[in-house]
Amino acid sequence: MPLLEPPWPPGLAPLKAVDDLLRCGICFDYFSIAVIIPQCSHSYCSLCIRKSLSYKTQCPTCCVAVSESDLKNNRILDDLVKSFNSARQQLLNLVLEAPPVPSPPA
Amino acid sequence: MPLLEPPWPPGLAPLKAVDDLLRCGICFDYFSIAVIIPQCSHSYCSLCIRKSLSYKTQCPTCCVAVSESDLKNNRILDDLVKSFNSARQQLLNLVLEAPPVPSPPA
Ligand SMILES: [Zn+2]
Ligand SMILES: [Zn+2]
Ligand SMILES: [Zn+2]
Ligand SMILES: [Zn+2]
Repeated sequence: MPLLEPPWPPGLAPLKAVDDLLRCGICFDYFSIAVIIPQCSHSYCSLCIRKSLSYKTQCPTCCVAVSESDLKNNRILDDLVKSFNSARQQLLNLVLEAPPVPSPPA
Repeated sequence: MPLLEPPWPPGLAPLKAVDDLLRCGICFDYFSIAVIIPQCSHSYCSLCIRKSLSYKTQCPTCCVAVSESDLKNNRILDDLVKSFNSARQQLLNLVLEAPPVPSPPA
């Protein structure tokens, strides 16, 4: 499980949906060595889905039958997690440094 | 080819790397119906890679042999393109509305 994370500041809230998509549906943390199940297109961390398949040989999201040999790396997700995490940190620093945005004149 | 796009404003420059990853290496536009080549993990727009395979049956990036029946949907990329595009638009509006950030005191 991920550590409890601070909420997104209001200015960066639009990125929350992107953040959600880059998280594994089993551990809810960012994908770590992402793999795709080609028959249903769902992706998980390699370790998370292998552990899950050792109990039940199906996709935890859509229940399609899956065996470990079906899993294929989805490397673009690892790259996206890396770039997104770095962008998030840089944007958080910018937002924390910037003065609050004044309300528009009435 | 995508239309010529305005540069990222300085405050949002950290997101450029994420933007780059969400683009197809054939058309350089955002993925449209993304598909993955399971044997090498490279992803492209469905139409772009099918057209490319009709000329040469290999991955245009790493040259591994590929046939059209290998291609599998990589749906999470379609969802990421959608969410990222919407976040980008909202953040651009915020940046354009916000006053410039003053330099820190010397
Ligand atoms: Zn996981
Ligand atoms: Zn599934
Ligand atoms: Zn394309
Ligand atoms: Zn390839």
